[in-house]
Amino acid sequence: MGAIDSLITELARLPGIGRKTAQRLTFHLLQQPREQVDRLAQALATVAESVAPCGTCGNPTEVQPCAICSDQRRDEAILCVVEEPAAIAVVERATDFRGRYHVLGGRLSPLDGVGPESLRIDGLLARVRQGAVREVILATNPSMEGEVTATFVQQVLAASGVRVTRLARGLPMGGDLEYVDNVTLAHALTARQEVP
Amino acid sequence: MGAIDSLITELARLPGIGRKTAQRLTFHLLQQPREQVDRLAQALATVAESVAPCGTCGNPTEVQPCAICSDQRRDEAILCVVEEPAAIAVVERATDFRGRYHVLGGRLSPLDGVGPESLRIDGLLARVRQGAVREVILATNPSMEGEVTATFVQQVLAASGVRVTRLARGLPMGGDLEYVDNVTLAHALTARQEVP
Repeated sequence: MGAIDSLITELARLPGIGRKTAQRLTFHLLQQPREQVDRLAQALATVAESVAPCGTCGNPTEVQPCAICSDQRRDEAILCVVEEPAAIAVVERATDFRGRYHVLGGRLSPLDGVGPESLRIDGLLARVRQGAVREVILATNPSMEGEVTATFVQQVLAASGVRVTRLARGLPMGGDLEYVDNVTLAHALTARQEVP
Repeated sequence: MGAIDSLITELARLPGIGRKTAQRLTFHLLQQPREQVDRLAQALATVAESVAPCGTCGNPTEVQPCAICSDQRRDEAILCVVEEPAAIAVVERATDFRGRYHVLGGRLSPLDGVGPESLRIDGLLARVRQGAVREVILATNPSMEGEVTATFVQQVLAASGVRVTRLARGLPMGGDLEYVDNVTLAHALTARQEVP
């Protein structure tokens, strides 16, 4: 296989990138200065070589433990449990959360063959058992699998006596009641809050 | 800048890939086996190192001249002129064209600062002047810039006495008159053909 076809094949492995897009990207790259293509190749090689999941929380990092786990100003008593590393960036950007994180590395999905053993649950239990953690916030995705995963983690942690919370569910800000989906609306009604 | 941020930045330079998609791709790559990321890095490095435009037609190639220009079974008397290399793959796939190609490397677009000097027009003229070419087929894109580019190339070639043709315009196959755009329909009417 030629160099151009190899590149198309490798690009087409990426999520959301089909063969046609891979071809378009390849032809684009062929028209760029060689340095730009080399920089992308180098960035990938560096990531492959030097980035690994943090041994503590599972967030990809170049140093062990990662910058968040080693930041003494952050509260080690509160753990925010997420499905994927990408969620950490979202929480960091959107909130003033100053605790630490734990990446499960996925969500329970029996149909896809993802059971508890595929998730970093043992690591989470070990961290909780060390005693410094007082609260675990379940920040799995608001999807069916995310709910199931959160319930499972909650059950696993039940015996440890740690406080377990989860992100509030309800109406999203800036929306219009008319466009809110039924499940969200039903949940928002059930979990209605007192007006202070 | 860390390895992860560098990769996001380089991926975000690709067309159609914004910062958010670049982040998603990066987090996806972080979850793949290291070999897959290395293969992509290697494919990019190989393309950067070994692929260059064909000195004759401008199509990216690992050997000089490219496979099409050096294929003696192809008719050197007919040149198909395209804007970008990607168009060659399309013509090869969709038609039984067995002539050769010439890649302009873009289209005339004064607003974007793309003038005739940015296109491989001198190379085209040189090929035509060598005398073996009898027909030049203008296969620029059916857009405003493509039309202007085709007209320009036609004028440049006028003095050479070579036959200049262009791809037919009209109704696309499989369409519905109701959904054909006005310009195409108007052109199809003007260029209506005799029923044999």
